[in-house]
Amino acid sequence: MALLREAVGSSLRAARTEQSRTLRDVAREARVSLGYLSEVERGQKEASSELLNSICEALGLQLSALMSDVTLQIASSEIAKLTVVDAA
Amino acid sequence: MALLREAVGSSLRAARTEQSRTLRDVAREARVSLGYLSEVERGQKEASSELLNSICEALGLQLSALMSDVTLQIASSEIAKLTVVDAA
Repeated sequence: MALLREAVGSSLRAARTEQSRTLRDVAREARVSLGYLSEVERGQKEASSELLNSICEALGLQLSALMSDVTLQIASSEIAKLTVVDAA
Repeated sequence: MALLREAVGSSLRAARTEQSRTLRDVAREARVSLGYLSEVERGQKEASSELLNSICEALGLQLSALMSDVTLQIASSEIAKLTVVDAA
């Protein structure tokens, strides 16, 4: 199964780069360390729910909008795996 | 903002009770402790992505299905908050 933290990280990174913002800028506004945000974006660290909300606020994103993107990503990866199994 | 772990916990609990299964049964199948699962369901503990997948498997749920339910819950709570602000 896909890992939730990887989908969350990838959605956060996509939202930040769409806004042409740096890790440093978003980390400062969210009051998290740059290293923490970077690890979260790379799917290496589970964000706590409170810090996830701070990061969403810094990005001007509703949590529901982030989670909708995360859900689509996870669903796509599940479909891709089913396709591989069907082809085998 | 809503807390992700609370929405995840509430969706997991709803899925388990819909199947009329006990905490003990699901915890055993997911190979997590009963106390851990209970804290996750009550939104008191952040589930790691790996253990969240084990719990989903024990419930026969795709992660995308869980996250879709979580997203709807969070969106509903955001709309409820907007309504309160509008009424004030």
